[in-house]
Amino acid sequence: MEHVNPDGTCPPPASIGVGQRIYALAEQLFPICRSITGDGVRQTLDILSRHVDLERHEVPTGTQVLDWTVPREWNIRSASITGPDGQTVVDFASSNLHVVNYSVRFKGILPLDQLRAHIHTLPEQPQVIPYRTSYYAPAWGFCMAHDRLARMPDGFYRVEIDADLEDGSLTYGEYLHRGWTDREFLLSAHICHPSLANDNCSGLALLATLARSLRTRQTRYSYRFLFAPATIGSITWLSRNEDRVHLIDHGLVLSCVGDAASPTYKRSRCGDAFIDRAMAHVLGREAGARLMDFSPYGYDERQYCSPGFNLPVGMFQRGVHGTFPEYHTSADNLDFIGPEHLEDSFRILTEVIDIVEEDWTPLNLSPKGEPQLGRRGLYAALGGQKSSGATSMSLLWVLNLADGRHSLLSMAERSGLPFMELAAAARLLSDHGLLAEAASEAVR
Amino acid sequence: MEHVNPDGTCPPPASIGVGQRIYALAEQLFPICRSITGDGVRQTLDILSRHVDLERHEVPTGTQVLDWTVPREWNIRSASITGPDGQTVVDFASSNLHVVNYSVRFKGILPLDQLRAHIHTLPEQPQVIPYRTSYYAPAWGFCMAHDRLARMPDGFYRVEIDADLEDGSLTYGEYLHRGWTDREFLLSAHICHPSLANDNCSGLALLATLARSLRTRQTRYSYRFLFAPATIGSITWLSRNEDRVHLIDHGLVLSCVGDAASPTYKRSRCGDAFIDRAMAHVLGREAGARLMDFSPYGYDERQYCSPGFNLPVGMFQRGVHGTFPEYHTSADNLDFIGPEHLEDSFRILTEVIDIVEEDWTPLNLSPKGEPQLGRRGLYAALGGQKSSGATSMSLLWVLNLADGRHSLLSMAERSGLPFMELAAAARLLSDHGLLAEAASEAVR
Amino acid sequence: MEHVNPDGTCPPPASIGVGQRIYALAEQLFPICRSITGDGVRQTLDILSRHVDLERHEVPTGTQVLDWTVPREWNIRSASITGPDGQTVVDFASSNLHVVNYSVRFKGILPLDQLRAHIHTLPEQPQVIPYRTSYYAPAWGFCMAHDRLARMPDGFYRVEIDADLEDGSLTYGEYLHRGWTDREFLLSAHICHPSLANDNCSGLALLATLARSLRTRQTRYSYRFLFAPATIGSITWLSRNEDRVHLIDHGLVLSCVGDAASPTYKRSRCGDAFIDRAMAHVLGREAGARLMDFSPYGYDERQYCSPGFNLPVGMFQRGVHGTFPEYHTSADNLDFIGPEHLEDSFRILTEVIDIVEEDWTPLNLSPKGEPQLGRRGLYAALGGQKSSGATSMSLLWVLNLADGRHSLLSMAERSGLPFMELAAAARLLSDHGLLAEAASEAVR
Repeated sequence: MEHVNPDGTCPPPASIGVGQRIYALAEQLFPICRSITGDGVRQTLDILSRHVDLERHEVPTGTQVLDWTVPREWNIRSASITGPDGQTVVDFASSNLHVVNYSVRFKGILPLDQLRAHIHTLPEQPQVIPYRTSYYAPAWGFCMAHDRLARMPDGFYRVEIDADLEDGSLTYGEYLHRGWTDREFLLSAHICHPSLANDNCSGLALLATLARSLRTRQTRYSYRFLFAPATIGSITWLSRNEDRVHLIDHGLVLSCVGDAASPTYKRSRCGDAFIDRAMAHVLGREAGARLMDFSPYGYDERQYCSPGFNLPVGMFQRGVHGTFPEYHTSADNLDFIGPEHLEDSFRILTEVIDIVEEDWTPLNLSPKGEPQLGRRGLYAALGGQKSSGATSMSLLWVLNLADGRHSLLSMAERSGLPFMELAAAARLLSDHGLLAEAASEAVR
Repeated sequence: MEHVNPDGTCPPPASIGVGQRIYALAEQLFPICRSITGDGVRQTLDILSRHVDLERHEVPTGTQVLDWTVPREWNIRSASITGPDGQTVVDFASSNLHVVNYSVRFKGILPLDQLRAHIHTLPEQPQVIPYRTSYYAPAWGFCMAHDRLARMPDGFYRVEIDADLEDGSLTYGEYLHRGWTDREFLLSAHICHPSLANDNCSGLALLATLARSLRTRQTRYSYRFLFAPATIGSITWLSRNEDRVHLIDHGLVLSCVGDAASPTYKRSRCGDAFIDRAMAHVLGREAGARLMDFSPYGYDERQYCSPGFNLPVGMFQRGVHGTFPEYHTSADNLDFIGPEHLEDSFRILTEVIDIVEEDWTPLNLSPKGEPQLGRRGLYAALGGQKSSGATSMSLLWVLNLADGRHSLLSMAERSGLPFMELAAAARLLSDHGLLAEAASEAVR
Repeated sequence: MEHVNPDGTCPPPASIGVGQRIYALAEQLFPICRSITGDGVRQTLDILSRHVDLERHEVPTGTQVLDWTVPREWNIRSASITGPDGQTVVDFASSNLHVVNYSVRFKGILPLDQLRAHIHTLPEQPQVIPYRTSYYAPAWGFCMAHDRLARMPDGFYRVEIDADLEDGSLTYGEYLHRGWTDREFLLSAHICHPSLANDNCSGLALLATLARSLRTRQTRYSYRFLFAPATIGSITWLSRNEDRVHLIDHGLVLSCVGDAASPTYKRSRCGDAFIDRAMAHVLGREAGARLMDFSPYGYDERQYCSPGFNLPVGMFQRGVHGTFPEYHTSADNLDFIGPEHLEDSFRILTEVIDIVEEDWTPLNLSPKGEPQLGRRGLYAALGGQKSSGATSMSLLWVLNLADGRHSLLSMAERSGLPFMELAAAARLLSDHGLLAEAASEAVR
């Protein structure tokens, strides 16, 4: 473990790299059997609550949420298949992927032929266990490695699933970091997957760590963190918050943020929202990064971007869900994610938050010709050198575009310079009385 | 002949492939000597009338049509050149390309040197006969293979062209398939070329077959089919129908639709008319298909897209006119076109008509979040599978974009899914009460 | 020298090619030690005045110009470094680049260690002298080849700079070619660099030659030629002409127009001004030509395009300043520029002026269908030929787009045909009564 000192002691948290802290949290979340409802979600929120002061919501079974109804709550204690020889073939205790998520209680003895109809494997990846669910159709089933199934002899098998599907509630966690304004940045990660490390222990751990890191920061925006089951969770939240979604100016859904693939951003439905432009700017400086257009398939951006809401919410991930072979299998384990990738994802989110926080629209108070920067000590006094440093270029770009119709982000887009370099230049020029804030920030 | 059964009998028309039926009709049209006026046009319309109930128009010589005047009518009976040895060098009877179209009557004996000024060849394609016309400048001339000319010995040649250029009329045919509305889709093919199979026996035969196929179809649009000589014919039609061109919502000019080249669409002058988008969508799914911008050179789209009309009329062809070596030569014969290519062209036009007919703008009646498709039996009940089938994607795209500002065609453009797949999804959703028709279809 | 006859006599100016005339003028300008003020500028204007009747302006030291103040005037007589052995190490007389431009007077004996702090070299180009300035920070310094510095032995060096930095004035020259209208085309070249041939003896000589060539031409636009020091010169001009900059419809800054690189155009700040489109059209037909977006670093376009003016002024050059190794060094000498490149630059500017002068918005007076060109002798009478000549295409394009919403330049952009070919077609059609001038030329 990288976050244990060579002498075996644990360093104080602050001295551990943020990637290692996120990884350690993901490790804690990994073993829990989560689903869209049930105690696994509650245990997960218990752990996250050690890092950030979560508000927990319990929404009773049967509650109408938009077009949906909160389902019965599912809890599982054990499940196994025992072979004709009395040997245990699969055991929920060894991997919670072995049972189809939301399987109903079952106990019986079946011949292999009948049992097979309830067993899911991946013939093309014969050594991994697939992940399957059956939330809305009552059924039971097992998932296992195809190779193991192939070795199962004919005969009668004892099957036992000790699970409850009963009235209860749907659980989700929420944390609001209050800024100076009530305009919101929504960050959302799904909490419903069992032992899949990248999808989405990585997202949950990253989001909790990001929320914690904001606690000491004064921000313009309020940041809302949502840890909720996919689809039904975001639908439940939207249903209970219809009157306040108009406050959301920016949003990101996070999943699969810990693997080795290059960062990927999927645009919001509108496609050129501020968050889309900010992510494009940040990823534009990352080698191999991908930008994808919105499509109505993926994670909870499907709900946030449904036409009745059409929120400016994009999705951030590394490996594109559904395209890497480990996706939704037992190969999406703790070896598939790494602290360095989690740290990289954290850094990217921090840069985007910096843009959201730091963007403003300056107005050049000396707009006719360039102001004499040299007189103000803002410019290399000795001319004629072959190249002007980046800082000089930032000053010149900000002055040139500070006509009240360009925010710093649009200056970054036009100049190709990093946002933060332009932000620093704008601060410097502002300090020298050369810039004022444009009357309205309407134009960005 | 592919449309003859192995036992030599002819199958009933319905059982012949449409490509073969179009080819058989082109075969019938091929031998006729057409021009911009004259009995060749009338014979062609006679044949086409066996397939579709054409209205025939005769417009007298001298009629003012826009900036033009209907010319005298040309009819030719025979033409030949006889050599010094009494041998026939060229004979109109063997190919109607041998005589410059619209040649005036001539009879005389000329030395080769003088005759040469009246002979057109293609030195770079020495074995084919070129096609030449002289509609508006009274002249006479012959076209022949360059090799044949090279072999003609010096001496005196007897030349005889038995043709009339007299007051008469310009002839064109028209067929209107009436739809529920009087908004029109104009389909136009030029009827003036003599024995050139691709240019344009193919277009004439395809259009007549398409008109026939519509007879049993209830359509929203009215479909106007025009079989008229190039330039002067469309100008005459426009001149006589100025008060009704405002009804034309879509239009296509057809020529060269039977050769082996990939399909080509040339956009209308406005460039993003519905027909331009529909053709781009259909051809976007055809390997090797070409989209070309409008230019004022080509066929009758020149007239329909003149600035005073600016109709949404594009042009569909396979080989691009003027670029393939067979163009306007005797090599554009029945071997140059094929039933399979005609069938492919027919299919493409049918798909475009389907888009024109089936496009509508749905409104999602459950626009907040996704509606629960599973409850309605519209979605695979077992989640977690790696890929969702195309049908599920169509349902999701339609629901997501059904905000009243996207027609099915714009959904197809944005999603990259086939129009008909989205149309099927929209029908299904509509049947389940999830979609209504948006108040106005103005926005597409 | 190419412009001397084989027999040693000088040919009369008119018979020399324009490239050679521009080169000869650049040769005359090259030896002069220019700066942003001083007698070098006046000598340069004296020479240019032999070609074009310049108005000369003297603006006193201390005059407030926009955010700047006209500096003291600098004049230098001599400067040298003498080594411990009494040998002259560098001498201003051998190259005016040896002294930092605007060096203050200095006389003293220094050990090499102290002297080194005042010496500028280019270690990566050890044989060339760099060009350095210190306009606004009083300082003295020398520039020399790095190899020469490396050979200087330890010891005491005698340094002498005989220069004045005193109240005087800033000098610039201006020439206005009056057209029928008072709308202006501004052409501006910086006059402040000492012996650098490409940057900008080439621009000064080209501009003076262009101004001279216009004297006999009746133009629609008035052409303002400005020969002023970079930055402070254009700022001074803008400050004194704030009330008339609204007359400027087009503008170009010229520098580095004599080297062998392909022509380069840097767009104005607005990016799609008429001058941007005209230059893009002309350079679109030049192999290897480059179009660059505006950036606020370069020459006086920085001032013209400052947000308070935002004039439609682009920049024309060949090698991109700051990117070729000769830039701002003694290698930018008369061998680096050539008459053929100067002539090519001259031709390009002439073509752009032709577009500016000849653009108009025609209206098709026979807009329904094509007018019958053949009847008017405007079209090949014999149809059916494989390709229509470019002239026919120009006629068809002009007629098709002459809807009052396309100027000739936008026709050139859409058709891909050369502007002048369309202009010729428009003239021909106009002569035949087929075109009128659209009511307003507002739309281009």
